[in-house]
Amino acid sequence: MRKIVLEIAYIGTNYNGWQKQPNNNTIQETIEKCYKNALNEDITLYASGRTDAGVHAYKQVAHFETKSTIPAEKFAYILNAKLPDDIRITKSCEVDEHFHARFSAKCKTYVYKVYNSPIPNPFYNNRALQIEKCLNIKKMRQGAKVLKGTHDFTSFCKTYKEEKDCSRTIYFIKIKKDTKTNVINIEVCGQGFLRNMVRIICGALIDVGLEKTNIQDLKYILENKDRKLASKTLPAYALYLSNVKY
Amino acid sequence: MRKIVLEIAYIGTNYNGWQKQPNNNTIQETIEKCYKNALNEDITLYASGRTDAGVHAYKQVAHFETKSTIPAEKFAYILNAKLPDDIRITKSCEVDEHFHARFSAKCKTYVYKVYNSPIPNPFYNNRALQIEKCLNIKKMRQGAKVLKGTHDFTSFCKTYKEEKDCSRTIYFIKIKKDTKTNVINIEVCGQGFLRNMVRIICGALIDVGLEKTNIQDLKYILENKDRKLASKTLPAYALYLSNVKY
Repeated sequence: MRKIVLEIAYIGTNYNGWQKQPNNNTIQETIEKCYKNALNEDITLYASGRTDAGVHAYKQVAHFETKSTIPAEKFAYILNAKLPDDIRITKSCEVDEHFHARFSAKCKTYVYKVYNSPIPNPFYNNRALQIEKCLNIKKMRQGAKVLKGTHDFTSFCKTYKEEKDCSRTIYFIKIKKDTKTNVINIEVCGQGFLRNMVRIICGALIDVGLEKTNIQDLKYILENKDRKLASKTLPAYALYLSNVKY
Repeated sequence: MRKIVLEIAYIGTNYNGWQKQPNNNTIQETIEKCYKNALNEDITLYASGRTDAGVHAYKQVAHFETKSTIPAEKFAYILNAKLPDDIRITKSCEVDEHFHARFSAKCKTYVYKVYNSPIPNPFYNNRALQIEKCLNIKKMRQGAKVLKGTHDFTSFCKTYKEEKDCSRTIYFIKIKKDTKTNVINIEVCGQGFLRNMVRIICGALIDVGLEKTNIQDLKYILENKDRKLASKTLPAYALYLSNVKY
């Protein structure tokens, strides 16, 4: 069996996330069905990780095994001809048998997009979170420094189970503002993430930017390992899986 | 009667353009109906100009007359509460009786968005025109210089009628490439435009960028006043009315 890797971009708005579920419209299922339809072979896609309902991807990575002898780069064209236009295979290539889209991943980067302006803008519907009040970027960057590194992220995780290890490593958090569009990108890169972790972290940093919480508060939230202390989970529609490195 | 001006942003994808028509879903009609629904008054909107089906606006400007005594800035909030989320009033203010959104306009700027990459990107569906082959921006800028100024734009107009004056003035054409996103914005500013003029001009400049036509050809097309000589009309979905100045 050959092993093929796909790089995939998608608009998550119309899907119930990546992972196949009974009676649900998901990215994984959509691609697997198009593959079956095009090449009459059942495949299972293994992604770098799930994305939640509504979350987008600039670059998701998934592999599958196939008996097909088609040149590896052709899979992208064949699938794109069948896929709905909100999912696109941006690359396909062959890898050796040891590669695993999830277990071989060294780091993943997510971007959370904030449209920071009181003026409504329809082009950011389902694409960025509008925050009307001007965010203090300098303070957000100070907050990012607190969260960088290896910590127990229990306070920033959806479901806490006592037996579970909630220690994770964040390699960097970059916060960039485009002063022309008033879009702030919060880029979070780590080895792996807990459930909703990026959306809770970005919510905490926005609270810092809004000066609702200060740096001391943020340290307290991190250290006290209590989900109730941190901010609410931000909406999924402004989150993008932007890169996976191997 | 008071005169109120609205600044309007819209995603044109789901509309048959600005202008009200029988049995057609248009931006003008949608806003007029929401106004009636919110304030129980019939108004007529006069825009800076029509936009075609599928064309977007970062900033369209329209005025109307009203008997309402509501503070001018409130109209934006009242309408936004009723409007579908692909149309947003970004500003409302009162003007004197001599103002006319169309006749008082000094210049209008359109942006045509080209996504210049062979890699598919679902986020540009209905938002930018994908051109796979790398465009020669330097040559496009030379082409822009040919079209700048006052000319008879018969070759760049949808419907030529002998009696009609096809002379128009283009104040500037700016071509900017964002090397990170591979998006090229072709910005065209003029006093007024003929039907499809911006989309035909941008098509001609893309032909220059693709090196299908050279600068001499472009001069010939302009001077010979024949629509058949210029390029096809580019699709509407990548065109944005971006500014109107008074």
